[in-house]
Amino acid sequence: MAKKERAVDSEHLRQSVDDIVARMGIIEQFGDAAEHIEGLADIETDRFGIAVVTVDGEMIVGGDADTAFPIQSISKVFSLTIALRAFGDTVWKRVGREPSGDPFNSIVDLERHEGKPRNPFINPGAIVVVDMLLDLPKKHDGPRTVRDMLVAETGDKEIGVDRAVFDKEASSGFTNRAMANMCKAFDNLNHDVEAVMKPYVDQCALALSCRQLALAGRYLMRKQTGGGEPDGSDDARLARRVNAMMLTCGQYDGSGDFAFRVGLPAKSGVGGGILAIAPGVASVAVWSPTLDENGNSLLGTLALELLSEKMGWSVFG
Amino acid sequence: MAKKERAVDSEHLRQSVDDIVARMGIIEQFGDAAEHIEGLADIETDRFGIAVVTVDGEMIVGGDADTAFPIQSISKVFSLTIALRAFGDTVWKRVGREPSGDPFNSIVDLERHEGKPRNPFINPGAIVVVDMLLDLPKKHDGPRTVRDMLVAETGDKEIGVDRAVFDKEASSGFTNRAMANMCKAFDNLNHDVEAVMKPYVDQCALALSCRQLALAGRYLMRKQTGGGEPDGSDDARLARRVNAMMLTCGQYDGSGDFAFRVGLPAKSGVGGGILAIAPGVASVAVWSPTLDENGNSLLGTLALELLSEKMGWSVFG
Amino acid sequence: MAKKERAVDSEHLRQSVDDIVARMGIIEQFGDAAEHIEGLADIETDRFGIAVVTVDGEMIVGGDADTAFPIQSISKVFSLTIALRAFGDTVWKRVGREPSGDPFNSIVDLERHEGKPRNPFINPGAIVVVDMLLDLPKKHDGPRTVRDMLVAETGDKEIGVDRAVFDKEASSGFTNRAMANMCKAFDNLNHDVEAVMKPYVDQCALALSCRQLALAGRYLMRKQTGGGEPDGSDDARLARRVNAMMLTCGQYDGSGDFAFRVGLPAKSGVGGGILAIAPGVASVAVWSPTLDENGNSLLGTLALELLSEKMGWSVFG
Amino acid sequence: MAKKERAVDSEHLRQSVDDIVARMGIIEQFGDAAEHIEGLADIETDRFGIAVVTVDGEMIVGGDADTAFPIQSISKVFSLTIALRAFGDTVWKRVGREPSGDPFNSIVDLERHEGKPRNPFINPGAIVVVDMLLDLPKKHDGPRTVRDMLVAETGDKEIGVDRAVFDKEASSGFTNRAMANMCKAFDNLNHDVEAVMKPYVDQCALALSCRQLALAGRYLMRKQTGGGEPDGSDDARLARRVNAMMLTCGQYDGSGDFAFRVGLPAKSGVGGGILAIAPGVASVAVWSPTLDENGNSLLGTLALELLSEKMGWSVFG
Repeated sequence: MAKKERAVDSEHLRQSVDDIVARMGIIEQFGDAAEHIEGLADIETDRFGIAVVTVDGEMIVGGDADTAFPIQSISKVFSLTIALRAFGDTVWKRVGREPSGDPFNSIVDLERHEGKPRNPFINPGAIVVVDMLLDLPKKHDGPRTVRDMLVAETGDKEIGVDRAVFDKEASSGFTNRAMANMCKAFDNLNHDVEAVMKPYVDQCALALSCRQLALAGRYLMRKQTGGGEPDGSDDARLARRVNAMMLTCGQYDGSGDFAFRVGLPAKSGVGGGILAIAPGVASVAVWSPTLDENGNSLLGTLALELLSEKMGWSVFG
Repeated sequence: MAKKERAVDSEHLRQSVDDIVARMGIIEQFGDAAEHIEGLADIETDRFGIAVVTVDGEMIVGGDADTAFPIQSISKVFSLTIALRAFGDTVWKRVGREPSGDPFNSIVDLERHEGKPRNPFINPGAIVVVDMLLDLPKKHDGPRTVRDMLVAETGDKEIGVDRAVFDKEASSGFTNRAMANMCKAFDNLNHDVEAVMKPYVDQCALALSCRQLALAGRYLMRKQTGGGEPDGSDDARLARRVNAMMLTCGQYDGSGDFAFRVGLPAKSGVGGGILAIAPGVASVAVWSPTLDENGNSLLGTLALELLSEKMGWSVFG
Repeated sequence: MAKKERAVDSEHLRQSVDDIVARMGIIEQFGDAAEHIEGLADIETDRFGIAVVTVDGEMIVGGDADTAFPIQSISKVFSLTIALRAFGDTVWKRVGREPSGDPFNSIVDLERHEGKPRNPFINPGAIVVVDMLLDLPKKHDGPRTVRDMLVAETGDKEIGVDRAVFDKEASSGFTNRAMANMCKAFDNLNHDVEAVMKPYVDQCALALSCRQLALAGRYLMRKQTGGGEPDGSDDARLARRVNAMMLTCGQYDGSGDFAFRVGLPAKSGVGGGILAIAPGVASVAVWSPTLDENGNSLLGTLALELLSEKMGWSVFG
Repeated sequence: MAKKERAVDSEHLRQSVDDIVARMGIIEQFGDAAEHIEGLADIETDRFGIAVVTVDGEMIVGGDADTAFPIQSISKVFSLTIALRAFGDTVWKRVGREPSGDPFNSIVDLERHEGKPRNPFINPGAIVVVDMLLDLPKKHDGPRTVRDMLVAETGDKEIGVDRAVFDKEASSGFTNRAMANMCKAFDNLNHDVEAVMKPYVDQCALALSCRQLALAGRYLMRKQTGGGEPDGSDDARLARRVNAMMLTCGQYDGSGDFAFRVGLPAKSGVGGGILAIAPGVASVAVWSPTLDENGNSLLGTLALELLSEKMGWSVFG
């Protein structure tokens, strides 16, 4: 394939990623110089990684792209995907698809909506989705857990949980247990609370590198074309829908701001990772541990904002 | 310009619009046949109009595309645009950009956030924006009101208010007055409540046809390209940002569902109109008076869902 | 009548009041010594007044008992009384009688309960009651306004509004106007918002001394006796009901704490006054300007706590 | 002791109780005749019991006064009493004393107040109190559990749990578990959730008759007298405080209405029982299974309203 036929100008992408890594490095080392950017002055030293897989099959990485981190809430994208593939639209009988307008661990909304979580990316929503996965038939065709899916998408059988993260959350996730019990009180949890909490905590503690996470997100960059689905499957429709959920609900209570600044469907985790999709173009993973007040990676968001602008990838024009 | 160079296949668009108009007509006339689509059974007869302006400059219309209707909340897109052009990012000091997660006329959120409306598309947010417009300097370059802007964008100096709508809302908008007073209680309204309510009600009562509304939305389909802004202005950035707000907050409490089904930035009004943008491609206006439970046009939303799918215009792939 | 037949041992009461005034004086002058009482350390100097009218007709006063202060929310007791006498139980169709569990100016509750304020002592509840008073027939027998009632109960025709208080609230009560508009939005306000705000602000700004306020509260100490109403009127029943509302809802968001500490039906105002009733025994007014975090007089509450304990007046045993 | 020296006219009380039982019987048998009393028309047949213990030591009963029923939330009065005796005012560091203004199983308030329940009579408040009781020292002087206390107060060692009630709640109290987890998430629960749920469900399932419950409530009718505590103990102060909590918070979201109609400190349970106290005069227990919309016994409340009026026992005059 000639270079001009490619969807992404890989040289421009390479330069953009290098620029971003350099800039993030400066922020790390010279926090003072970044004082005018709100919040950044507090970061003395930080780590940063980025990986971009294009629709053309190229992988461009920068910084700590091979450092594994717990994906935390990013796992909710994959569990939702498994559930949608297995159960289709019945998923939406048990979980809504509206932004919550409340901090991510809020239980208020759950009570107001009688145990139906507002969307699959807030904790109770993901807990209900995990509850569904426990009902997958034994002979289910395809992955049954987020780990299975991530192994399949990345080809790395070694993917496992971050033990420290798992132990901490398994024993102390009282707010999550509160929300799981609220769902159960409203008959929206089929299994015992503890039977659901185990795989829920499990998937949150899975550790991936940026490189692996970008690979795992490739299925979300499939694009339909007008007049039919050229890739001959329901996958483009699934990707479109998951991307829509990510854009409206993916960054906790900062989703509107993220859409405004970055303009890409994305899902963040409190481990500092973000998976972002440029539909039809690229799957991007960034990681940097320091979080903003909404629980999203500070440098990760900034890097995606720069990448989106440099590459013209915003879905909003 | 050769046809293949066009951004939009106008024949395919023409066929798609015709298909949609025909289908909406069937729903109007044979509501029974549409019973399996939730909510549609209640519609005995309804009216429907559509207009699409492409980035190539073509206008394709169908149904009641020249019937004027009050644009209501769609006016909030234009008042926000004027404010952003005049005041830039200082707008965001007085209004947020997060989905509200509450019904559109909720005052709860306003109290929780100390008089700062969650976003510019809920009523109190738009009221605060109108309050800003009253501070525009006398010699302001460009439109000072939504009407001025609509006249400029459509070239129709006859655009005016729907008198019945204006009279009704001017005298009975008690919830809006409650919210305006709450903003003022928190020092987030510079002018007297009644001084703000007048132009607010005014812009909501402006009556446009689909054809006019699609023309008025053209500025929002401008697309940046990677590596620079080819149209040499801040307009692409503005469009991108307004589109982001429309996608996350544009359909009241049904924004997530709309993103999921249609996948286009859009703003609805209780007059039955919706303005939707396919960034870089088209500006679309639809109108049909029957509303769903969230206050969005039932047939209008369905028509946009079909159009987006037929044309492959979803921003999510 | 022999002294032993009196309901109240007036010597003991006299001593108790003197003790309390002395103790309040010490707190004023030697704030440091009071540091162990939470909140009191902040008061450098403060003023304090108290007046007690017994069922035997005695008046015992102390401190600044003749200084006039704006009664503010205490006026709500009197407007409720006028409304209950004129309209009976229909009052409760437009206002509830449950504690709000929210800060006193909260609008949240109002929205949740569709414009029906939780009780007549939160601002929107009192606004609705004032709206009722505007519907009193021209030839109404008895007082039509709180001022009329206070003049009748105290015999002082000079009672008037504190001009500074009136002017400030008349022009800046935006939260109250927000709540009035919310009531009107739910059809729970018959008159124009401004037509109701005027007498509402008026009654809040009325200025009384402790002596006058204690006199005005006498009608609330009437006690029924088992087996019939010895005073031959509905007044005991009215007093019982108003006292119940005062005990459960009279101190904003601190009503439970006040019942726990003082054990008397009471209503406070942000002017620093409190009217408290020992049913069948006494009407008490205290005043001291410094407020606690719930908006109740700090020294006033402490004084009532001491008085209740010294005299054994708690209704709870 | 001569009859005139008694605090309560026992003949009048006897007649009043008989009247009430007769009237309740009529409502049971001829529901139609009671149609004008809201809610009563739905009751075809119902059971009713009443027991009154006076300060003079007399016990007067009527109806099904010896039928045992699960005391449910009435147990919260006794667990609070044990905690206050053992830990004094430190109890209030972990639980508030304000009415909640929300339905009794609401979790919203708990989140807003960071895991500190609004008062000890809503479920999470009682759960926190039970958590405290688990910290009682081994050699604690006095009852360690509600059952121990009830055995001591009634002299009946056979008091036990209603097995059916216990089993149902032990396995299905998901909302309670949600609230317990919320408290634990905010570090306001020392023991494991399940370790607290067990004794909590246990005390709710304890079954008592009206006769027993009235006996158990005797300690709450102790009255202080002005100028000192004649019964030489802190018991009067304790009773006064528990009574205050019962009056402001004892009937879930109907506490204000109950104070208005009955005017006595009381605590209801969803088993249909109510314990009411006339301070210094009597301890009253009523029981009737049908509940009003707030979860309080319909006939029980009505009976107490009649008794309070007939005997002149309202604390409000």
